[in-house]
Amino acid sequence: MIPYTQEHRMLQDSLRDFLNKEVVPNIDRWEKEKTCPAQLFKMMGDQGYIGVNYPSEYGGSEMDFWSAVIVMGELSYINFGGFTGSFYAHTYLPLPLINALGTEKQKQNYLKPALLGDKIAGLAITEPGAGSDVAGLKTKAEDKGDHYLVNGSKTFITNGTIGDFVVLVTRTGPKHDMTLLLVDLASSGITKNPITDKLGWHSSDTSQLFFDNVKVPKENVLGEEHKGFYYLMNNIQEERLLMAVMASYAARFAYDKTLRYVKEREAFGKRLSDLQALRHKIADMATKLEACEAITGTAIREFIENGSAATNRITKAKIYTAETAMEIINDAIQLHGGVGYIEEFGLARVWRDVRLFSIGAGSSEIMREIIGKFEIDGVVHEK
Amino acid sequence: MIPYTQEHRMLQDSLRDFLNKEVVPNIDRWEKEKTCPAQLFKMMGDQGYIGVNYPSEYGGSEMDFWSAVIVMGELSYINFGGFTGSFYAHTYLPLPLINALGTEKQKQNYLKPALLGDKIAGLAITEPGAGSDVAGLKTKAEDKGDHYLVNGSKTFITNGTIGDFVVLVTRTGPKHDMTLLLVDLASSGITKNPITDKLGWHSSDTSQLFFDNVKVPKENVLGEEHKGFYYLMNNIQEERLLMAVMASYAARFAYDKTLRYVKEREAFGKRLSDLQALRHKIADMATKLEACEAITGTAIREFIENGSAATNRITKAKIYTAETAMEIINDAIQLHGGVGYIEEFGLARVWRDVRLFSIGAGSSEIMREIIGKFEIDGVVHEK
Amino acid sequence: MIPYTQEHRMLQDSLRDFLNKEVVPNIDRWEKEKTCPAQLFKMMGDQGYIGVNYPSEYGGSEMDFWSAVIVMGELSYINFGGFTGSFYAHTYLPLPLINALGTEKQKQNYLKPALLGDKIAGLAITEPGAGSDVAGLKTKAEDKGDHYLVNGSKTFITNGTIGDFVVLVTRTGPKHDMTLLLVDLASSGITKNPITDKLGWHSSDTSQLFFDNVKVPKENVLGEEHKGFYYLMNNIQEERLLMAVMASYAARFAYDKTLRYVKEREAFGKRLSDLQALRHKIADMATKLEACEAITGTAIREFIENGSAATNRITKAKIYTAETAMEIINDAIQLHGGVGYIEEFGLARVWRDVRLFSIGAGSSEIMREIIGKFEIDGVVHEK
Amino acid sequence: MIPYTQEHRMLQDSLRDFLNKEVVPNIDRWEKEKTCPAQLFKMMGDQGYIGVNYPSEYGGSEMDFWSAVIVMGELSYINFGGFTGSFYAHTYLPLPLINALGTEKQKQNYLKPALLGDKIAGLAITEPGAGSDVAGLKTKAEDKGDHYLVNGSKTFITNGTIGDFVVLVTRTGPKHDMTLLLVDLASSGITKNPITDKLGWHSSDTSQLFFDNVKVPKENVLGEEHKGFYYLMNNIQEERLLMAVMASYAARFAYDKTLRYVKEREAFGKRLSDLQALRHKIADMATKLEACEAITGTAIREFIENGSAATNRITKAKIYTAETAMEIINDAIQLHGGVGYIEEFGLARVWRDVRLFSIGAGSSEIMREIIGKFEIDGVVHEK
Ligand SMILES: Cc1cc2nc3c(=O)[nH]c(=O)nc-3n(C[C@H](O)[C@H](O)[C@H](O)COP(=O)(O)OP(=O)(O)OC[C@H]3O[C@@H](n4cnc5c(N)ncnc54)[C@H](O)[C@@H]3O)c2cc1C
Ligand SMILES: Cc1cc2nc3c(=O)[nH]c(=O)nc-3n(C[C@H](O)[C@H](O)[C@H](O)COP(=O)(O)OP(=O)(O)OC[C@H]3O[C@@H](n4cnc5c(N)ncnc54)[C@H](O)[C@@H]3O)c2cc1C
Ligand SMILES: Cc1cc2nc3c(=O)[nH]c(=O)nc-3n(C[C@H](O)[C@H](O)[C@H](O)COP(=O)(O)OP(=O)(O)OC[C@H]3O[C@@H](n4cnc5c(N)ncnc54)[C@H](O)[C@@H]3O)c2cc1C
Ligand SMILES: Cc1cc2nc3c(=O)[nH]c(=O)nc-3n(C[C@H](O)[C@H](O)[C@H](O)COP(=O)(O)OP(=O)(O)OC[C@H]3O[C@@H](n4cnc5c(N)ncnc54)[C@H](O)[C@@H]3O)c2cc1C
Repeated sequence: MIPYTQEHRMLQDSLRDFLNKEVVPNIDRWEKEKTCPAQLFKMMGDQGYIGVNYPSEYGGSEMDFWSAVIVMGELSYINFGGFTGSFYAHTYLPLPLINALGTEKQKQNYLKPALLGDKIAGLAITEPGAGSDVAGLKTKAEDKGDHYLVNGSKTFITNGTIGDFVVLVTRTGPKHDMTLLLVDLASSGITKNPITDKLGWHSSDTSQLFFDNVKVPKENVLGEEHKGFYYLMNNIQEERLLMAVMASYAARFAYDKTLRYVKEREAFGKRLSDLQALRHKIADMATKLEACEAITGTAIREFIENGSAATNRITKAKIYTAETAMEIINDAIQLHGGVGYIEEFGLARVWRDVRLFSIGAGSSEIMREIIGKFEIDGVVHEK
Repeated sequence: MIPYTQEHRMLQDSLRDFLNKEVVPNIDRWEKEKTCPAQLFKMMGDQGYIGVNYPSEYGGSEMDFWSAVIVMGELSYINFGGFTGSFYAHTYLPLPLINALGTEKQKQNYLKPALLGDKIAGLAITEPGAGSDVAGLKTKAEDKGDHYLVNGSKTFITNGTIGDFVVLVTRTGPKHDMTLLLVDLASSGITKNPITDKLGWHSSDTSQLFFDNVKVPKENVLGEEHKGFYYLMNNIQEERLLMAVMASYAARFAYDKTLRYVKEREAFGKRLSDLQALRHKIADMATKLEACEAITGTAIREFIENGSAATNRITKAKIYTAETAMEIINDAIQLHGGVGYIEEFGLARVWRDVRLFSIGAGSSEIMREIIGKFEIDGVVHEK
Repeated sequence: MIPYTQEHRMLQDSLRDFLNKEVVPNIDRWEKEKTCPAQLFKMMGDQGYIGVNYPSEYGGSEMDFWSAVIVMGELSYINFGGFTGSFYAHTYLPLPLINALGTEKQKQNYLKPALLGDKIAGLAITEPGAGSDVAGLKTKAEDKGDHYLVNGSKTFITNGTIGDFVVLVTRTGPKHDMTLLLVDLASSGITKNPITDKLGWHSSDTSQLFFDNVKVPKENVLGEEHKGFYYLMNNIQEERLLMAVMASYAARFAYDKTLRYVKEREAFGKRLSDLQALRHKIADMATKLEACEAITGTAIREFIENGSAATNRITKAKIYTAETAMEIINDAIQLHGGVGYIEEFGLARVWRDVRLFSIGAGSSEIMREIIGKFEIDGVVHEK
Repeated sequence: MIPYTQEHRMLQDSLRDFLNKEVVPNIDRWEKEKTCPAQLFKMMGDQGYIGVNYPSEYGGSEMDFWSAVIVMGELSYINFGGFTGSFYAHTYLPLPLINALGTEKQKQNYLKPALLGDKIAGLAITEPGAGSDVAGLKTKAEDKGDHYLVNGSKTFITNGTIGDFVVLVTRTGPKHDMTLLLVDLASSGITKNPITDKLGWHSSDTSQLFFDNVKVPKENVLGEEHKGFYYLMNNIQEERLLMAVMASYAARFAYDKTLRYVKEREAFGKRLSDLQALRHKIADMATKLEACEAITGTAIREFIENGSAATNRITKAKIYTAETAMEIINDAIQLHGGVGYIEEFGLARVWRDVRLFSIGAGSSEIMREIIGKFEIDGVVHEK
């Protein structure tokens, strides 16, 4: 899928080394403890893995988008979906917004430490009463001259408790009048409530945040006031595309594991891989995986060439891979028999973790809404 | 689905009362503790819920098979898959064998206390090297005159650690030469190793059992020696049928919950249940649920009338409901959005728990093998 | 599926004899000629096959609803979907309405000759601009005192050209104000335009009908004036249920044929039925077929007991079987390889014919709308 | 999907003009007559459309493989599957073999006139007793010194009756010992029997061929004697890849047509395209279409770069598109309601025509066998 340059290969190799040494041996433990190992952000920031495709002036390496694909792909492949999700919700949710819209000062104070792993970031949109329907959110920011006063609550916020700051989406008027604020999570008036038991993403921190008269200075407004809704809608292509990447690599993890297993495991005097019904199942899994990689690769190439004009294609890649990866992983469990049901063997985890992909970053239903707008109503996104 | 008599209704009502009072309030806790609440066996035995369709002379109530359907259905509907699985692996795996094949003494010593909940039972077939392929098992029972000497190991045994005894399937000769033994789990030479982390069935005990020169007196042979394999093959119809029941009721639980949710939850200024795409999804879920209940109900009726002659139909009901229930539950999660991903709301649990049904009690692939034999090779099961 | 009585068996035997002698040998020819063999109506009327479950006073045999199931099932099983469709559109579309609503004179003039096969009937609802949306139809009947003057057009009307009369749905006021009229197709002012090339149902007559100032005497009003819409909505349960029956038997035809084929055909030195991947496919087909039969049988039983209260279940059986039968037949073609693609072997025909079932008698989307009303909005149908 | 050069655009434009002028207006007639309009070969040869990617010395234009993609894509998009199939079975089944293996004389006598449309060609592999199992074929070629004597029969041969010559696969020894012969169909001893009624491909000629002591001069051996089986296995990548192209464009035809229809058609006071359930269906169709195009485009790019090393990927593209195109087309019919069932509207045809793609050029099951060899057994194809 990836047109590797030498630089890409070097990135991949060093990242693999790092992961195998520092991360892989501890995954099972962190997962059981249901902790997000926040220290990894710093370690990854030090190695430059956060900022691969960010500007060098803020600590990035200014590589192309494929480098982000490599980072998210490799992370996804080690089957550590929770932390991968945290890393993703840090690196590719709030940071692209700051990078695109931030003032120099904001970039120095938030983007740079985030790329170095010194600060952990999140993006806080969802509320108890408004998820898919972003326009329905209620957390209010009142203009008090030099600052905003924020009241309301957010939920399901990745990195909400372990994070240092979030890009907070607030209502500053009726309907689509919203404003993005850079909010330090240590500010007074913020209460954090971690949601500890989730189906998956165990090593990720998902939290509720309550805002009670939280003061946010005006200089922390990201981009222009009142334009937050549009900023959001226009800066989620990397997010969705990288979720397709994560889904594809998670499916490949499950597939590769299964391929090894069926060649070893025996039943009825044969290797499982000699049973025709299972061979055909493997062939179908491989075909679906190829479709995931092809649809994702095609979308990435268009994104690199045409930016937001790739939105329709990216949306399709997101829904397709989220749903198809689950089918592949489900078959992977099946082919492992009882062993597939035991956490230790890792397939249970990837199945639980990937289930989120049809819900988060825009549910499959919302993807269908968007695709419908492009296909039927002829909406066109500019480059 | 069920042609309720008044007796059935009474059973259902009292069981519901019992569950709501004694069980439901504690489920979340037990699940988190990953404990099988073994004390429930005794409580349920006292109330007569274990023995509903067993002979009264051993503590049962001698009701018809629909009573078993009611018990397993109600249990399944409270979304406590782990314990339900333990109860099932006690009541409908080893006990039908003892009931069918046991001597009077065996019934007094094992069946009766098991029906009263004084002893917890299991059925131990699977080994590390032999699951689907029962004929490949290796745990050996050597004939030592008045007793057997058992060596080997079993894995994935439900109730293996909390249980008092198992029906143990042992090899007593080549190929299909196997013998069923009633083995007290307190016997010396037995080591138990609980498998703690599973995808689902958290409140069920699944264990490995190691047998090192375990002595089993000849009077503990169940049925005739060397005929174990055939006994097994001929006594799994209740087991499979009740798994179809469990799957159908688990799907109904998820469906009912979703129906309530979409009528309350709002997005984009409407109730979710006013969005046509979701209405159609609900309709599809309802249709699949109807198919689950119809195929199961039809199989039950045939089983009651024709016994083992219903095998082909039961096998189809088992594979169909196990796979279709997962589709329904998957949609249920989806329609709940982020909330579907949080354990507290219960859908995550039922999704994890039901995943086992395509693997356990004969995997879907093994079901296809069996159906193929009936359909293609014209195998016929006698009444 | 059917709880056969001796009377049922006799009906089935005699019908099979009749079909094998008079119909089966000519099917291929009729299909190629794209003719509906109208003479069969008379022959089947003579034998009593039309009126099996109609009152004896109008030529019926007053058997139970299972007899209708047998007739439609046997017809469907001989793979002659076009004529079967014509027969169905005669026997179970207009006639139940006349039977339920007709005056004695109407029954003598229309129902009786129709049951005897002396007249061919149709039901004309669909218009070029209104299919699913029955309330959108425009064909107007103006009240002229002793008669109605009809103007407008209908399309896709089965038996429109070969038929003697239709129950015509006309608009007699705004919105749901419609009136059913018994219209002789020989009336002056009616033009008929057969639609000759259809995907399937080749031996069925599907026609457009144009009404230009057609006079219909008041005595031909069926039921009360202005109530046509409600009559229609309340009298389509037999129609939908029997379509589920037709779908199930068509699937069984394809399945049985495939089972025979895979046991004979060889490839790679084996019978196809020895190839595991195909055995498993067969098992899946058999399982789906069982689900079709179970969901249909369950709906029939409820319909016999509770009449219209079975609507929800019937609707589910209709959508489920229409869609699942296509999957089964599609697999049947696949397992026949190139031969499946040749008309002579009959699978192409059944595939083409059954494709209609998700469109006609209420499309799958309309079924979902209806199921949604029951499940979500709590609509209840009285017995 | 296609990285168009100016040359590609010119080819596409001129071909579209040609098709719109000479072909499209006659398609319905040819289809009804169930004739392959053989004269089109000459017309297309004159315009250079047959030889786009063949060497100029034999009448080709020596463009790249994308030109073949354009030709097959455009043909597929006009919904004339039968002739498209004939054209394909001429241009991309036998001719690549002659181009790769032929002597100068063979190329002058067969390839050149075929590229010019002066001769129509076919590839004859399948026999009544051997389709998927090529190694099981029995048509015998006896070595008589200066010629071969051919006896046996072939079936399902596209262009068998209208064709001038075929590449005939014959048995010249046990097992995989086969020889390819260039056989003039006018040779004495050949009887042709057209198979007239097929599910689809109505405007294609599919025939049985009987060989009774047919003399074939040695100079008509294609490639080396006894190596025919391997030649076949190694020269079918273009064939399979172009079938994926045909499938993708046929699906796009159905999709585009549906998109137009739902925007015009009204029901329940709305355009169909305003109904959410249909919008989501459209989104799913569009997503599947994107996956078809992505998997095919990816395979083409790899084929152009790496030749036969792309086999695994091509095989996946073939099975994926053949099956997915049918799903898309099936939905297209559904969204058209009754109109989808009428031949005149063209969806019935594309549905019937594309059904072949999971059977011909290697069935889906055979694709799975091949993919299994690559994925599981580690078979590697050289560049
Ligand atoms: C582990 C986890 C991490 C998360 N991380 C973050 C984060 O970092 N930041 C953040 O802001 N949010 C986060 N979220 C929230 C996530 O983005 C939302 O859950 C998601 O957007 C869906 O919103 P919802 O849960 O409110 O569902 P709802 O919007 O209530 O949707 C419920 C169902 O209705 C469907 N639906 C909604 N509208 C329509 C429509 N118009 N037509 C058809 N169907 C419709 C949905 O698809 C879904 O199936 C996270 C969630 C989870 C579980
Ligand atoms: C929570 C839990 C509880 C359990 N409880 C019990 C218990 O109480 N007692 C007990 O004895 N066992 C129990 N089991 C074990 C269970 O019955 C086995 O896991 C199951 O039978 C599958 O066997 P296996 O795991 O060895 O898989 P395998 O047999 O190794 O199968 C691996 C894969 O290969 C497939 N396969 C196998 N053979 C074929 C074939 N011929 N053709 C095609 N595909 C094939 C299988 O379907 C599966 O997909 C339990 C398992 C779990 C996870
Ligand atoms: C061979 C044949 C025989 C027939 N015989 C008869 C007969 O004897 N008498 C008779 O009256 N009619 C007959 N019909 C007509 C048939 O009943 C209609 O075709 C059918 O009801 C669908 O209507 P339509 O074709 O107008 O499609 P439309 O109503 O235009 O529907 C187009 C598509 O939109 C979908 N759709 C419509 N409304 C909604 C909605 N609200 N939400 C979501 N999706 C929606 C439909 O499901 C369909 O997919 C026949 C049709 C055929 C092809
Ligand atoms: C319209 C049309 C045009 C054609 N044109 C040509 C042509 O020009 N030249 C030519 O040579 N042939 C042609 N064919 C023949 C076509 O290639 C064969 O039909 C195809 O290869 C399948 O072979 P079969 O029909 O013998 O099916 P079979 O080989 O008998 O297969 C029957 C079923 O068994 C399955 N099967 C077979 N082997 C296995 C296995 N090992 N494991 C699992 N499943 C298996 C198949 O997939 C299929 O589902 C044409 C066919 C048609 C219908």
